[in-house]
Amino acid sequence: MDRPVCILGLGLIGGSLLRAVVSTGRIAWGYNRSFGSVEAARSDGYDAENDLEAVLRRAAVADALVVIAVPMTAVDSVLDAVARYAPNCALTDVVSVKAEMAGAVAAHGLSARYIGGHPMAGTSASGWIATDEDLFRNAVWVVSVDDGVDPDVWTTVARLALSVGSVVVPAASDEHDRAVARVSHLPHLLAETLAAVGAAGGDLALRLAAGSFRDGTRVAGTSPTLVNAMCEANAAGLTAALDDAIERLVQAREALSNDSSTAELVDAGHTARRRYDDQLQWWEITDVTIGVGDWVTALRDAGRRGGVLQSL
Amino acid sequence: MDRPVCILGLGLIGGSLLRAVVSTGRIAWGYNRSFGSVEAARSDGYDAENDLEAVLRRAAVADALVVIAVPMTAVDSVLDAVARYAPNCALTDVVSVKAEMAGAVAAHGLSARYIGGHPMAGTSASGWIATDEDLFRNAVWVVSVDDGVDPDVWTTVARLALSVGSVVVPAASDEHDRAVARVSHLPHLLAETLAAVGAAGGDLALRLAAGSFRDGTRVAGTSPTLVNAMCEANAAGLTAALDDAIERLVQAREALSNDSSTAELVDAGHTARRRYDDQLQWWEITDVTIGVGDWVTALRDAGRRGGVLQSL
Repeated sequence: MDRPVCILGLGLIGGSLLRAVVSTGRIAWGYNRSFGSVEAARSDGYDAENDLEAVLRRAAVADALVVIAVPMTAVDSVLDAVARYAPNCALTDVVSVKAEMAGAVAAHGLSARYIGGHPMAGTSASGWIATDEDLFRNAVWVVSVDDGVDPDVWTTVARLALSVGSVVVPAASDEHDRAVARVSHLPHLLAETLAAVGAAGGDLALRLAAGSFRDGTRVAGTSPTLVNAMCEANAAGLTAALDDAIERLVQAREALSNDSSTAELVDAGHTARRRYDDQLQWWEITDVTIGVGDWVTALRDAGRRGGVLQSL
Repeated sequence: MDRPVCILGLGLIGGSLLRAVVSTGRIAWGYNRSFGSVEAARSDGYDAENDLEAVLRRAAVADALVVIAVPMTAVDSVLDAVARYAPNCALTDVVSVKAEMAGAVAAHGLSARYIGGHPMAGTSASGWIATDEDLFRNAVWVVSVDDGVDPDVWTTVARLALSVGSVVVPAASDEHDRAVARVSHLPHLLAETLAAVGAAGGDLALRLAAGSFRDGTRVAGTSPTLVNAMCEANAAGLTAALDDAIERLVQAREALSNDSSTAELVDAGHTARRRYDDQLQWWEITDVTIGVGDWVTALRDAGRRGGVLQSL
């Protein structure tokens, strides 16, 4: 019997996870600070409270897996409570940056039982109203493999992801952050840039905008609060990704101006997009046993090459 | 009775225009250099030839409207033939840059009867096989209004666009080029950049890429030959748009690095995208009569403010 799950934060990700875990027949309950979401969850038949201390005391008694599902800006106060009321529980999170999160966990003395996580799922919607028990089905869920991690907690967290239909990608926290800066945070800043440059062309430019502009600016429709929180929490990784993008654009600008050619950037981009299309199918990591030998290095290497775990 | 239409080039745009014009009951015929497309058009019941001289002599006899629908790189040789065999026909084009096209027309002594055009329609598909008689329905079709244009030819060209279901946006050639650089050419270079930066993050980054990356790189799947031809023909406008984009990204990079904030760019982008959504509905220009008073300036002003003509 899997241990119960205690989810702190019932927004889109946390709330969907509560639905998904309960749908597998497992015991789970949630906490949310605002009572509105708690009442909405309850009226849908879920076990929810807005008393953080009580929720965590219950987790400690039941030896539950505690999942932090609040925005990065609210993590410290939640960790204060975890350290006080449930310091020995296995602990994970679904926050979109991993190095800063691991640092916060370490600052609260909770690293020994902690494994970071990041389900690559979500929409621009938010709150309990948007929750979906199928949100994690066929999604990619990163589970951190940093030096010295506890193999039992790692297995517990990876199984949570697998149990709700995701595949697990193992990655070191800092490598995760650098990767998502390129494929998840940079896309937002480029979309914002395209929207702003288009609008600076006035009503004529916006009138002439068609499919390439519409697709390229879609995520600029996301709430600025969410985008800023996501980007600012990964400042180091995103700065490096921005530098790479700026360098390529400056080179393209020079090539266009000096040689009337965009071929170098366009060829590189087209090749890259084809590589992305070609590897949409994942490959399974089958040669690593959790806790045996140098499993940490082996898992990180496999994740770096695009491998996933589909079962444990 | 509208004059017949002679279309030079039967690719996606020219071929679709032949289908669309014939479907309105008007006489039209086409030329294509490769005989494969001519045969394909004929087997679909259309009047097509690969003898450019014969096609243009027929246009001269019938006083047809001649439409240039070949890539910018093939425009000069087509204009040579127009100047020789049909110099007095009304002339337009569907090429995606307008200033360079107008310059080529002027170099062939054909400006007096020429009005540039650019239907903002098309897909990443190409060739007769991709043609569609409804391609221009509800599309925006730019018709150039430069100083000294002939009001009768202007009306002829605008009516062609209206007859196939498009709305007409009047714009000066250079203003058109600057606008499409921002909303139609820059989106391609940003998509290529995002794809390349993502792939530079390796298989892990591509494994973690989700909706924002997929949407943001979609047009990087377009054939590099088409993208380069489009971008390189609008070098001046695109260089300015790139400079604007690079400046915004450099400022965002500094703000992120110095103040841990992405708010300025994100707020500007979000506001811009909302402005784009808000003006998807067009407004109709009703206070300008073609050929009367300073109609050229009045049309340009209205087009600059996002107005369209829905009838003439």
